[in-house]
Amino acid sequence: MDMPLTITTVMRHAEMYHGEREVVSAVSEQDVRRTSYSGVFRRARKLFNALQALGCQPGDRIATLAWNHQQHLELYYGVICGGYVLHTINPRLFDDQIAYIINHAEDKWIFTEPEFIPTLERLKPQIKHVNGIVVLDTDDDAGASFRNVHVYEHLLAGQDDTCAWPEPGENSACAMCYTSGTTGNPKGVLYSHRSLLLHTLSTAVLDAGGPGANDVIMPLVPMFHVNAWGLPFRAPLVGAGIVFPGRYMGNPQVVGRLITQEKVTYGVSVPTIWQMLLDHLDRSGGNLDTLRKAVVGGAATPLSLFERFRDDYGVELAQGWGMTELCSAGTLNVPGPDFELLDEEQRRQYPLKQGKPIFGLEVKITDDGDNALPWDGVAAGHLKVKGLTVCESYFGATEAESGVDANGWFTTGDVATIDPDGTIQVTDRSKDLIKSGGEWISSIELENCAMTHPAIAEAAVISAAHEKWTERPLLIAVKKPDQTVSREDLLAWFDGKVARWWKPDAVIFVEELPHTATGKVSKLTLREQYGDYLLAQNV
Amino acid sequence: MDMPLTITTVMRHAEMYHGEREVVSAVSEQDVRRTSYSGVFRRARKLFNALQALGCQPGDRIATLAWNHQQHLELYYGVICGGYVLHTINPRLFDDQIAYIINHAEDKWIFTEPEFIPTLERLKPQIKHVNGIVVLDTDDDAGASFRNVHVYEHLLAGQDDTCAWPEPGENSACAMCYTSGTTGNPKGVLYSHRSLLLHTLSTAVLDAGGPGANDVIMPLVPMFHVNAWGLPFRAPLVGAGIVFPGRYMGNPQVVGRLITQEKVTYGVSVPTIWQMLLDHLDRSGGNLDTLRKAVVGGAATPLSLFERFRDDYGVELAQGWGMTELCSAGTLNVPGPDFELLDEEQRRQYPLKQGKPIFGLEVKITDDGDNALPWDGVAAGHLKVKGLTVCESYFGATEAESGVDANGWFTTGDVATIDPDGTIQVTDRSKDLIKSGGEWISSIELENCAMTHPAIAEAAVISAAHEKWTERPLLIAVKKPDQTVSREDLLAWFDGKVARWWKPDAVIFVEELPHTATGKVSKLTLREQYGDYLLAQNV
Repeated sequence: MDMPLTITTVMRHAEMYHGEREVVSAVSEQDVRRTSYSGVFRRARKLFNALQALGCQPGDRIATLAWNHQQHLELYYGVICGGYVLHTINPRLFDDQIAYIINHAEDKWIFTEPEFIPTLERLKPQIKHVNGIVVLDTDDDAGASFRNVHVYEHLLAGQDDTCAWPEPGENSACAMCYTSGTTGNPKGVLYSHRSLLLHTLSTAVLDAGGPGANDVIMPLVPMFHVNAWGLPFRAPLVGAGIVFPGRYMGNPQVVGRLITQEKVTYGVSVPTIWQMLLDHLDRSGGNLDTLRKAVVGGAATPLSLFERFRDDYGVELAQGWGMTELCSAGTLNVPGPDFELLDEEQRRQYPLKQGKPIFGLEVKITDDGDNALPWDGVAAGHLKVKGLTVCESYFGATEAESGVDANGWFTTGDVATIDPDGTIQVTDRSKDLIKSGGEWISSIELENCAMTHPAIAEAAVISAAHEKWTERPLLIAVKKPDQTVSREDLLAWFDGKVARWWKPDAVIFVEELPHTATGKVSKLTLREQYGDYLLAQNV
Repeated sequence: MDMPLTITTVMRHAEMYHGEREVVSAVSEQDVRRTSYSGVFRRARKLFNALQALGCQPGDRIATLAWNHQQHLELYYGVICGGYVLHTINPRLFDDQIAYIINHAEDKWIFTEPEFIPTLERLKPQIKHVNGIVVLDTDDDAGASFRNVHVYEHLLAGQDDTCAWPEPGENSACAMCYTSGTTGNPKGVLYSHRSLLLHTLSTAVLDAGGPGANDVIMPLVPMFHVNAWGLPFRAPLVGAGIVFPGRYMGNPQVVGRLITQEKVTYGVSVPTIWQMLLDHLDRSGGNLDTLRKAVVGGAATPLSLFERFRDDYGVELAQGWGMTELCSAGTLNVPGPDFELLDEEQRRQYPLKQGKPIFGLEVKITDDGDNALPWDGVAAGHLKVKGLTVCESYFGATEAESGVDANGWFTTGDVATIDPDGTIQVTDRSKDLIKSGGEWISSIELENCAMTHPAIAEAAVISAAHEKWTERPLLIAVKKPDQTVSREDLLAWFDGKVARWWKPDAVIFVEELPHTATGKVSKLTLREQYGDYLLAQNV
């Protein structure tokens, strides 16, 4: 039957068959707000009516600067199903970046938390196309001085809770998210209804992390970044409950309490947040008894985290890999039928892989000359992907800027190995790779090794210029509080753990590592600072 | 990215990421043949090359008269991904029906088991467009006298195992299956790549029965009927192993042994086959210890079957509902989060429902005047559906014959109630409904009640003409061997179990009930025979 693949079908499905499933949002450190999918979608209809009353036109970009909560979910559906484009903005970006992407996207309205109003006020002189702002989670204008300022709840209050949703084509744009590259301006990844829906279905498959109607999901990744990895679509499609941490995602006390109190079965986050949670539970004596499944991604995850999850909390943590340009998830690593055949050490190392691609995604690795490399688990190459969920263009960019070659392959910027069964292991970012005498050295593998040292809290390995080998690895490390280790002992730690010629040439201890707006270690900053260290030291 | 939704993507996905997963086929009562998805697809490429060599043109219909086994799976992919249309024929149809659908579909080649050659030879004078036949599972022509007779294995032997698969549009037809209506000629339901792929994804969702890579699936429903409910696509997509019962689907000894020997975790079948299997296991003392999930559908399932599965074999049997016109699955009934809230009796009756629709399928019930009825679990109406997996036309039929109304709703011919959460329970076929004094009586509910009587083996309730009430229910029953019950006592069995005015007006005991070619009780035959019984008896 000729029906379009739209996010509206997810909404209709959830409303008809999972309407009473609960949606819980933390509104303070102690309190939650409860509603259901029916409640969310009823208010999404009011929101759509309000957007029409505000004069929004089909295809208009509507921005959000918001945490993970019910109102943001209402915006997801009210804007996307209303035929507009939901532009989620990362509030942790620098002022100039936020101003740039608001102007570049030509956002018409910005829905914002009260705490981001000072930022927007600062940027007001730079912001061009915005008609006004709508303030979430408050009863007044929170001091905003824009031409038009509305209070979200007041805006909805006057609206009818019925509407006729438009029927956009499945290939029409419905959402966008800017990636903040380490160089140049951020680029706006544009999602179509079709790509988001197929991503939702492909990631609802069991071994792609597919939750079920009996799950209660806590998205511990922000809705302002790659749609919280698709969970705001996946959870309603399968009928799982949702527990939103609100502005408390980084507060392990609140998160830990919510998991137990709301019987969360399924959690998704980045290594740092999981680590903070386990540290808190270790101290407080809490547990994760309700958790059935946990997923980690977004950054390299140390083996110790998987072991703590399994050994101390009885939860299997599964690693995934994805990108903004892939609608989020690219792979997930769950033990398949061959797991039983592995030896003990292989099983221990297993979680460090990123797993097999989701349905609809093809992968390959290539050398610098774009020649395909074998799937032998050894050869490392530039990871390229193509498929149903790969976005083929950036907003307002030319085809040449898309990063997609003539055969449809998108260059991820990651370096990986691929096992014979298609399981990938990301060994580095292409730009972080160390090319020593023409051979590649993985900075991530060296960092993982450094971080297994009991005295090391955080470590980064960068490529430093070298007279003889052109580039050599340089280790920059942060010691744990009250722990000590000498440079020599730390370097000796690598002996027997990595190839002899991979061993870093030197160690620099620092108080803390620089991080990007999205929380990743900024190797660009480190390279600027220490890129000539080996030359200067004459190592 | 603009990539079509084709079954070819399933093949590519399975070959890349689950290539070594095993495909097992029973070749005799004792022996199996083993290969892998890679092996199947390698031979599918040879098959495609062979079909091209035979002169097949894009869109040609290629028919199969075949059991569930590896070669049939090769045909599924070689034909479908080759750009042809796979026409699976039910060998249990009557001669005239088989001849009709071969001619109607204009099949070019027929791939057949040796045992169906006598049938084809009989029909040869009637068959019009067929170029020749290809004999599976044999080394010679098995006595066939068609103009062109090939042996499948010989045909493949000479072919290259590489090929360039065509890239048909996602809306192009790729498979067809005729439904044998009780009146008129069979109608050919045409499947597009897109509808089959979306059905595969929607049924790979956990609560739609979604298996995983660690499952080993046994399809105990024929590949010649509604694509074995989609399992030949679903299993490779998720990377599950397959165990095909070959020609032994109706042999519970072979099936039971295969389940244990091959560690089958996931089985799908109709009530009769499951019942035969449990009867055999009861007698032989076998078990279903490896089975993790079992699905039943295709006919009304007595409560006792669910109880035997749970109590005697520790397996939760889940009921589904579907149709040829829906690519197969429409609903599946698995306990959701509200199951805990039910009382004991509600839980006991729970498996009798057919469950919630899969993603992409909308349902409604209407009265005779096409007015929507409430979802209250009480009102019973004509079940209508629309959605991504509903086929909108029959092969060679006009739009008016499609059964789809102007708003896109397809009339299923079933009568159902819908719970507030969208769970459906089929209470009857529209044409089997008894309209007594304008009120509806469900024949299925009366049959279920009759079959709970310890002396009754099988029962059918038909609508019989009645002077005062126009129609009244008439019970036709088969007693178990060596069991006895009087007409009066059997009627008294309904007291307190159904509404007083639903109680059948009379009972007829027969030696056996008539069945259709697909194994269902032929109520049409019963109505022809006994429709005037009440008038004649003056009951």
